Amino acid sequence: MSKTIYFGSGWFNEDQLAAYNDAYMALEQNPTVDMYNSYIPREHQYHDLEVADHPELLHDREWSTGTFRGDINGIKTSDVTVAIYLPFDEDPGLAMEIGYAHAIGKHVLMVIPDEHYGEDINLMTWGGADNVIKMSQLSNYNFNRPTFDFYEGGVY
Amino acid sequence: MSKTIYFGSGWFNEDQLAAYNDAYMALEQNPTVDMYNSYIPREHQYHDLEVADHPELLHDREWSTGTFRGDINGIKTSDVTVAIYLPFDEDPGLAMEIGYAHAIGKHVLMVIPDEHYGEDINLMTWGGADNVIKMSQLSNYNFNRPTFDFYEGGVY
Amino acid sequence: MSKTIYFGSGWFNEDQLAAYNDAYMALEQNPTVDMYNSYIPREHQYHDLEVADHPELLHDREWSTGTFRGDINGIKTSDVTVAIYLPFDEDPGLAMEIGYAHAIGKHVLMVIPDEHYGEDINLMTWGGADNVIKMSQLSNYNFNRPTFDFYEGGVY
Amino acid sequence: MSKTIYFGSGWFNEDQLAAYNDAYMALEQNPTVDMYNSYIPREHQYHDLEVADHPELLHDREWSTGTFRGDINGIKTSDVTVAIYLPFDEDPGLAMEIGYAHAIGKHVLMVIPDEHYGEDINLMTWGGADNVIKMSQLSNYNFNRPTFDFYEGGVY
Amino acid sequence: MSKTIYFGSGWFNEDQLAAYNDAYMALEQNPTVDMYNSYIPREHQYHDLEVADHPELLHDREWSTGTFRGDINGIKTSDVTVAIYLPFDEDPGLAMEIGYAHAIGKHVLMVIPDEHYGEDINLMTWGGADNVIKMSQLSNYNFNRPTFDFYEGGVY
Amino acid sequence: MSKTIYFGSGWFNEDQLAAYNDAYMALEQNPTVDMYNSYIPREHQYHDLEVADHPELLHDREWSTGTFRGDINGIKTSDVTVAIYLPFDEDPGLAMEIGYAHAIGKHVLMVIPDEHYGEDINLMTWGGADNVIKMSQLSNYNFNRPTFDFYEGGVY
Repeated sequence: MSKTIYFGSGWFNEDQLAAYNDAYMALEQNPTVDMYNSYIPREHQYHDLEVADHPELLHDREWSTGTFRGDINGIKTSDVTVAIYLPFDEDPGLAMEIGYAHAIGKHVLMVIPDEHYGEDINLMTWGGADNVIKMSQLSNYNFNRPTFDFYEGGVY
Repeated sequence: MSKTIYFGSGWFNEDQLAAYNDAYMALEQNPTVDMYNSYIPREHQYHDLEVADHPELLHDREWSTGTFRGDINGIKTSDVTVAIYLPFDEDPGLAMEIGYAHAIGKHVLMVIPDEHYGEDINLMTWGGADNVIKMSQLSNYNFNRPTFDFYEGGVY
Repeated sequence: MSKTIYFGSGWFNEDQLAAYNDAYMALEQNPTVDMYNSYIPREHQYHDLEVADHPELLHDREWSTGTFRGDINGIKTSDVTVAIYLPFDEDPGLAMEIGYAHAIGKHVLMVIPDEHYGEDINLMTWGGADNVIKMSQLSNYNFNRPTFDFYEGGVY
Repeated sequence: MSKTIYFGSGWFNEDQLAAYNDAYMALEQNPTVDMYNSYIPREHQYHDLEVADHPELLHDREWSTGTFRGDINGIKTSDVTVAIYLPFDEDPGLAMEIGYAHAIGKHVLMVIPDEHYGEDINLMTWGGADNVIKMSQLSNYNFNRPTFDFYEGGVY
Repeated sequence: MSKTIYFGSGWFNEDQLAAYNDAYMALEQNPTVDMYNSYIPREHQYHDLEVADHPELLHDREWSTGTFRGDINGIKTSDVTVAIYLPFDEDPGLAMEIGYAHAIGKHVLMVIPDEHYGEDINLMTWGGADNVIKMSQLSNYNFNRPTFDFYEGGVY
Repeated sequence: MSKTIYFGSGWFNEDQLAAYNDAYMALEQNPTVDMYNSYIPREHQYHDLEVADHPELLHDREWSTGTFRGDINGIKTSDVTVAIYLPFDEDPGLAMEIGYAHAIGKHVLMVIPDEHYGEDINLMTWGGADNVIKMSQLSNYNFNRPTFDFYEGGVY
């Protein structure tokens, strides 16, 4: 038995990309995650078009709506929402996804790079998470038996 | 007839405070808003304690949970979620509230200071908003007859 | 005290238009309905453009999405969903709205023209309605004190 | 890995029956669908009684409620809601199910017979669908990796 | 401005009846409650039939379903769910309503008779409540400005 | 294929414990249930602390909140909510869970010890259940093909 995930993570600066890659590899090693059938937003940009390559998409409402509905669909069709979370660079898109996933009843697992685990995070995203682990715990986390626990760090 | 709102806005730096004050005044002038019975998170910190004055609260789970559930309660018990939104300083707490409010079926009205209206905003918070107006339109916006419209700015 | 409604009704053929007009007038006479602040989909076509006048809109995804989200927004922001229902001409758009409104917890009031009241209706739309009245009862129905009751007609 | 579906389709006239049978066979061939454990409404009429054989059921509220709650339960307990959709014969029961499934966060896959794919469909059911495919694509559609896309036909 | 309530309370033994009456009177005196337009389950038994007078209703599924859907409808159409709660006689029907109201996002106000305030209550109903007050506070409680707070008593 | 369950049952008196054990054993024998990956509240008390051993927890809000959120999380992350239900000892915690699970769209299976099956149960918990079976049927119940049916006993 394994679970599918919504891979919530930015990939728009170096810190995000580093955490993105670490988390991706850890999840691929995790035997309780079916990564192949999970939803990776970056691989689901509407019609495979990325803003970085096509800046005109910034104002294209078909592309925006298609990508937005795709990601919402990914949260809905996946068992768990994984949020790769950087306390020093809290991402608004990821935060919105945490709020949405929490409201519709998905398990929200927040993952923080070890060297930043314990740093203060925002109160609302904190409350939306069902558990908060370190990056180094991700490859062994049992997605089939999720438990609730509070974050050990501060909340502002 | 008038509507109650959840006043979604940060107050943690100068830009946020300026927008906070502009929006607060505009809403008090708006005859379609019952500001007295609306939910202002800053006035509902758990047991009237603020982190700025009591840094030990950062690690107090009773305070965190009380404040979190208070704000969620504010979104639930108010007619409209107003999000005072700064494109150059997108706030994770506000973004989470937009995701949550969108998911539970509240009308989400995003308000952007005039001088920043049109600047790019995050795709997920964009999709969570039902309408996006300028700060100068806030005092005259008819909360009794909310309409949907797309943001005129870019979305990344 | 009065309630706002989402005015669910087609206006695409003569039967629908006749029922539309009857219901509209009845609701304007009803002292428990605030018709001025209610959501009338026909008055909220995206940017006031109607397909009848602009057939090219049929394939315009910005227009479709804008109109769809507008109507969903109307259901969310109104107290009661009123469904003007013709047993001999059951409308798929109205049926979808009944399913959506039922699922998000809105009171769904089905209104059937007197001469067709009692005729068989579809099982799923039947189950989505909280009460079913005759057109002639609409001007006096107390929207402030909604009750549940079963439709007296058949269900197929 | 495979997904369970709610098989949304009428079986009340020849066109519906033809599409019903085509879709049923395609889904049985699809390796990503667990058809045996999926919910087929026709096989779940309350206490195995069908209106066609027992016209008195039309007015039996225990039967109506039992069948209605059974179908709602089928939508809730299945991973994906498949809607076999005929543009020239849009069914109100199916439309209600699309609205309900969309509102509670199920992936809604609309399937249209090839010869009618591209014809105009209703705006509200269009907006409730997460993807729209041709009947001939159904046996190969990957239910484990659902994506969002817009219908290529018109919307009225 | 005033709010409507769902009056959650048993009336099946003397203790329940005493609390029922105290709460009813307090709410009628409360200027922030519109008691006339609120939902009182006892006044909405299906077709005005009560089990106490008609024991055959115990097995009548039309009556059971009608009364159940009526009460659910009352929770949905009222602003606040008031739960008149006896720690020494926790009622399963009321507990179910607390769970339901909490899940669909209604403010749940628990009211406990003064002489029992502080006694231990069940963990799950405790978690479903947004605030817990004494009976003597009910006539002055401001329903227009609901706040979250924890119960001061024990939780088992 | 098998389903995970939320094991809703008290363990606070002898009757509850007896039913708890019977149900637990039946579920372990049921090939359509993955008991190992199911959520057993008793095994998820916050930080493995039980009130029976630590009476001071009765007033500890971190423990209460942690246990409450854990159980809510268990309902959300499991496929089916199983409610071990004693008509003569209806439990408020279990009743709340039935209301919550019903509202968020989980299949609720009520299980009653054979010797008490048919006894009257509360109207609201009755309405929240999707099916009601005898304890002796539990080991063979097909969780992969859940159906709706009414309870055969009385409802008060």
